[in-house]
Amino acid sequence: MSERRRGHGEAGAPHGVADRRAAGGTRTDQKRQAITQAATGLFLRQGYEGTSMDEIAAAAAVSKQTVYKQFTDKEQLFATIVTAITERAERIAETINALVDEIVDLEAGLVQLARAYTTAVVQPPVVQLRRLVISEADRFPVLARTYYQRAPARGIAALAGGLERLAGRQLLRIDDATTAAEQFAYLVLGPVIDRALFDPGAPIEDSEIARYAAAGVRVFVAAYT
Amino acid sequence: MSERRRGHGEAGAPHGVADRRAAGGTRTDQKRQAITQAATGLFLRQGYEGTSMDEIAAAAAVSKQTVYKQFTDKEQLFATIVTAITERAERIAETINALVDEIVDLEAGLVQLARAYTTAVVQPPVVQLRRLVISEADRFPVLARTYYQRAPARGIAALAGGLERLAGRQLLRIDDATTAAEQFAYLVLGPVIDRALFDPGAPIEDSEIARYAAAGVRVFVAAYT
Repeated sequence: MSERRRGHGEAGAPHGVADRRAAGGTRTDQKRQAITQAATGLFLRQGYEGTSMDEIAAAAAVSKQTVYKQFTDKEQLFATIVTAITERAERIAETINALVDEIVDLEAGLVQLARAYTTAVVQPPVVQLRRLVISEADRFPVLARTYYQRAPARGIAALAGGLERLAGRQLLRIDDATTAAEQFAYLVLGPVIDRALFDPGAPIEDSEIARYAAAGVRVFVAAYT
Repeated sequence: MSERRRGHGEAGAPHGVADRRAAGGTRTDQKRQAITQAATGLFLRQGYEGTSMDEIAAAAAVSKQTVYKQFTDKEQLFATIVTAITERAERIAETINALVDEIVDLEAGLVQLARAYTTAVVQPPVVQLRRLVISEADRFPVLARTYYQRAPARGIAALAGGLERLAGRQLLRIDDATTAAEQFAYLVLGPVIDRALFDPGAPIEDSEIARYAAAGVRVFVAAYT
């Protein structure tokens, strides 16, 4: 819901209107959304510590009182945002499931899956959020663990399910699907995500994603067929 | 040099005395070392943005003027520290080289190498530095890239050289040693380092390291023999 709203903006988004009616408060919801959008941008650009509730209120064009009324404190606002953004992981998981079930040629299909998965994970907002959560993990261990379980681990779980279905179709021989899924993920996207984290100025090229996907899948298929 | 001094402290370290004479300034070096130690701890605990030059001066028991005289500004002090700490990567590279050249039984030897490598990389100060550099990568892209090239990429390069020597001994069949080294690294330590980054409260157990080492090496050996 909140993801959709963030993506589309309010104007001309009929489901947004319906959602607001269902939640029973058009103006409150609009303010909440404005605060969430402003805070996400500020946290991503400036980090948690470098962002004040005053700045968030100013960027959202609401009073500081309104911010506190909606979110209690900065920590709760931060937690709400991270949770909302991890809904993105659900869509990545859905993509994984759909692509796995389309596989006919194993190696070609896994390369396509690897490319789609890596492309989704190295989108700048995802990388920025990952960077933000890692940098605040000491201060918010529960939040970081929650993010990890809902986002990266959600992708691994979807992959594990997919690999099990491929094993059921006799295309792979898998003992431990979760371990195999982690291996697949780190083979194809590990180097790419690290490059994105450590070198934010240099864009990730499709050719780089394709190269790691092909090389990683080759190793994976050699081990699991 | 600075690594050795940091490790041993000044007192009773004969090479420290010699170094200081060569550098021509006992008191200056002592102050520089005190500032570096204090700043490293503060940056690691509080992040770059959350640490002031005042705090660093207080923690090092020197005047703020002395801090600025030695390091120009906070950015330069931060850069000096990150560079110094990445010297640790050289020692990890030496460990990799030594272990590769001891390998007799391929799979058992690679598992031993994987365990030593992962154990070195998930030491709390290494993880904290990695977290700090990732969190500041947008602000200091050159520094982050430099860190990456000197630390994680240094380990990969050592691994690549080692895998080439194993191929020379006919123990492995490798086309692209750097890609194979990245695959080895991400297979055996990728999930462990991410767990350390996202879940700093839960210690990394030897059994977890051993499990990923064994599973990763099994996949690697299946693909490259």
